[in-house]
Amino acid sequence: MAEIVSNKQVILKNYVSGLPKETDMHITNTNIALEVPKGSNGVLLKNLYLSCDPYMRPRMKKIEGHYVEPFKIGMPLSGYGVAEVLDSEQPNFKKGDLVWGMTGWEEYSLITAPNLFKIQHTDVPLSYYTGILGMPGMTAYAGFYELCSPKKGESIFISAASGAVGQLVGQFAKLLGCYVVGSAGTKDKVDLLKNKFGFDEAFNYKEEPDLDAALKRYFPEGIDMYFENVGGKMLDAVLLNMNVHGRIAVCGMISQYNLDKPEGVHNLMNLISKRIRMEGFLVLDYYHLYPKFLETIIPHIKEGKIVYVEDTAEGLERAPAALVGLFTGHNVGKQVVAVAHE
Amino acid sequence: MAEIVSNKQVILKNYVSGLPKETDMHITNTNIALEVPKGSNGVLLKNLYLSCDPYMRPRMKKIEGHYVEPFKIGMPLSGYGVAEVLDSEQPNFKKGDLVWGMTGWEEYSLITAPNLFKIQHTDVPLSYYTGILGMPGMTAYAGFYELCSPKKGESIFISAASGAVGQLVGQFAKLLGCYVVGSAGTKDKVDLLKNKFGFDEAFNYKEEPDLDAALKRYFPEGIDMYFENVGGKMLDAVLLNMNVHGRIAVCGMISQYNLDKPEGVHNLMNLISKRIRMEGFLVLDYYHLYPKFLETIIPHIKEGKIVYVEDTAEGLERAPAALVGLFTGHNVGKQVVAVAHE
Repeated sequence: MAEIVSNKQVILKNYVSGLPKETDMHITNTNIALEVPKGSNGVLLKNLYLSCDPYMRPRMKKIEGHYVEPFKIGMPLSGYGVAEVLDSEQPNFKKGDLVWGMTGWEEYSLITAPNLFKIQHTDVPLSYYTGILGMPGMTAYAGFYELCSPKKGESIFISAASGAVGQLVGQFAKLLGCYVVGSAGTKDKVDLLKNKFGFDEAFNYKEEPDLDAALKRYFPEGIDMYFENVGGKMLDAVLLNMNVHGRIAVCGMISQYNLDKPEGVHNLMNLISKRIRMEGFLVLDYYHLYPKFLETIIPHIKEGKIVYVEDTAEGLERAPAALVGLFTGHNVGKQVVAVAHE
Repeated sequence: MAEIVSNKQVILKNYVSGLPKETDMHITNTNIALEVPKGSNGVLLKNLYLSCDPYMRPRMKKIEGHYVEPFKIGMPLSGYGVAEVLDSEQPNFKKGDLVWGMTGWEEYSLITAPNLFKIQHTDVPLSYYTGILGMPGMTAYAGFYELCSPKKGESIFISAASGAVGQLVGQFAKLLGCYVVGSAGTKDKVDLLKNKFGFDEAFNYKEEPDLDAALKRYFPEGIDMYFENVGGKMLDAVLLNMNVHGRIAVCGMISQYNLDKPEGVHNLMNLISKRIRMEGFLVLDYYHLYPKFLETIIPHIKEGKIVYVEDTAEGLERAPAALVGLFTGHNVGKQVVAVAHE
């Protein structure tokens, strides 16, 4: 007989318009058998760390045709996480394996169509597989190296620069010999960018009434590459400051996710006069580069050439607040929820 | 002694906001010596055909940092044209040569830093060098083949499709085996697209209260490539209908040129979920392909596989009206001004 244990879950109560609130979710308890039904192809996971990511916001809306399914009302949220395999009917996974990938916002998840990576390197913090060594890390890597076509000596601007992806893009760019400027929304984050991540400059966009003027101050010779995480007014100001043959990698537009109608962007004519390439991307298209990425980044982490800052909420009960905080800029660094420690 | 002749000119009277009017220009007469000063490096041109192009509108504003200089108040406009060399102190050009390139809006132009192509093929209408065999032709060629990354069987939407560039893009795409739909602003133009240029479908955007719905009707399986000539609301509707990994070649945004503040584009988040590449370009960067382009297109013209429609205004006096008409969609096909016939 399988052991039955209590399984705490974070449930979506309703679809959300505007800023998500903690009360859009609730915590519930259910029971789960710690055994995968024989012949089911399932994998039973004990969740250790859950990742709070901006792309989860569109999943809180009932929209058609998005690249990821909306969450289901009354069901646990899902997202990237790090977990331990407790039982498996999948030949690729066995009890005791550490994995990262899509899991549920709950203590234990029975995954029937697993989309998981096995964790090989355990001499770095396991939670890093929600961030620098997981989806956000691959996002930064693909967005910077594959889309920005970076060259030594070029300039790059990164918005939401202290977040899970931005902090890495800036460090990749510094390693290549670029001039790197980031924006963030608090003094603490700006300090982090300059003092911890080695950005050449950083500014608090909330203290800049004129974003165009701010960018002209930090980029007197213009912007060669823009790593776009926010959209809206910032994008409009950046377009005015791009250089000829500039590249914009469009990773996210977090400033727009809570709006019923996204803001208008007015300066797209600059795409023509400056021959700008602006390209959206999803990390999903680049996972074939994951082994190469790990080979590059693990030594950098061990040698201290790349650092990573996480903001960890302890306990699944704090997951709703952690997710909500992502959209008001509450987190400093990559927002993680520790469900259980390894 | 050099012969002195009268030289009619089209002069810009003032910088323009909103729609340009004929009264923003006036016709004047001056005198010109039909001889290039010795040792001056100049070339004296007798202008035959002048080209009316959308990019001329931004030159009627006093703006800084644009890729072409604003016109000068009180001076003749300039633009692409076809001309005969009357005299030359440039070793590359001699009396009697036919050329195309930047010239003045006047009967005779003394060009001191000539940026002219010599015309080799004279068994096609000379006026074609303002269009299909000149800048607009190269624009269509570079934008379609270099930026759209077209593949047989893909779908393409072209706005301002009966214009100098659009009519060619559509024909290139049909030759490659694409599904081709264009928009234009009158029934006559729509008929031209379907019956003369062989587009699969065409519609009058002015009769479509819901552009999104119109595009869904013509592209039930989505748009792989968009050749952008107009910007604004059309771009917003197209973004909703692009396919995953779609490409947008941004050639122009004529709907925006007369606005003091360009319209906002709201649907850029589609760039991410659909991994769209949107790239602006200027033909200036692609003239190295001109010989290859001519090799391709001249046989197509001679064999009737590609046709070209011009809208010709006779006489320099009608040039201001012809230029103004470009921005209200008055022209059907490439707008040319015949100053003198060869």
